[in-house]
Amino acid sequence: MNYMDIALKEAEKAAARGEVPIGAVIVDSTTGEIIARAGNQSEADHDPSAHAEVVAIRNACQKLSSTRLPQCDLYVTLEPCTMCATAISFARIRRLYFGAYDPKGGGVDHGARFYEQATCHHKPDVYGGILESACSEILRRFFQEKR
Amino acid sequence: MNYMDIALKEAEKAAARGEVPIGAVIVDSTTGEIIARAGNQSEADHDPSAHAEVVAIRNACQKLSSTRLPQCDLYVTLEPCTMCATAISFARIRRLYFGAYDPKGGGVDHGARFYEQATCHHKPDVYGGILESACSEILRRFFQEKR
Repeated sequence: MNYMDIALKEAEKAAARGEVPIGAVIVDSTTGEIIARAGNQSEADHDPSAHAEVVAIRNACQKLSSTRLPQCDLYVTLEPCTMCATAISFARIRRLYFGAYDPKGGGVDHGARFYEQATCHHKPDVYGGILESACSEILRRFFQEKR
Repeated sequence: MNYMDIALKEAEKAAARGEVPIGAVIVDSTTGEIIARAGNQSEADHDPSAHAEVVAIRNACQKLSSTRLPQCDLYVTLEPCTMCATAISFARIRRLYFGAYDPKGGGVDHGARFYEQATCHHKPDVYGGILESACSEILRRFFQEKR
């Protein structure tokens, strides 16, 4: 199973909890081992910073007892927001794979384009549009049902 | 005592723990009550997202059982980085007061200038340079001693 499929599973679990369905997976690129997987949990935690990427980074850093994950890649179903893009940089993630593009809230290919700023001190390799339609479909369905 | 003085006390406590000395305070603007106060705790928590502002926001949101703090103001000793600037926006903080400016890593008046992006959906009122010299002095001293 593709790592983005696993991120999608995390997004589905988030939807089932009433959270915006976004999921993330962190993989040790040297072994292929999944170090952390998470969905959005902002509502459950009353924490506006508890996006899937930040939760996965926190869990992976705890597991490896380090604030940096230079051997790790992160897979996430939606283009990271500016907060998450910055957290990914701070964590020294090697590669970022994301699913759907997010023109309204993204911080990688839209808006702040954080990795292109002089204030960005680590830029991961970025691959967007992975399983794009499945990743955007789960979000579209969630917000349609909300209305 | 000024709220920025209290943020400075949190920065001093962070330095004593070996963390980069930055402190933050969140105040309910309707009552003046301090809702949360925190220093950087990235090293202790192995969490690259555990900047003073994010920790204070998490604690305040927990306390008020909400992901949003529209009646609250945040005081922080250094210009927020791009991650924290975005988290402050997500939390719907009313006013942001910061101490020293941060040309190398700031995301408010430098770099991503997040609050000026179309992908920013809430912009706090921003007041920079509060107790600026004390706020930058504590950082300068910390990094000098590190060398």
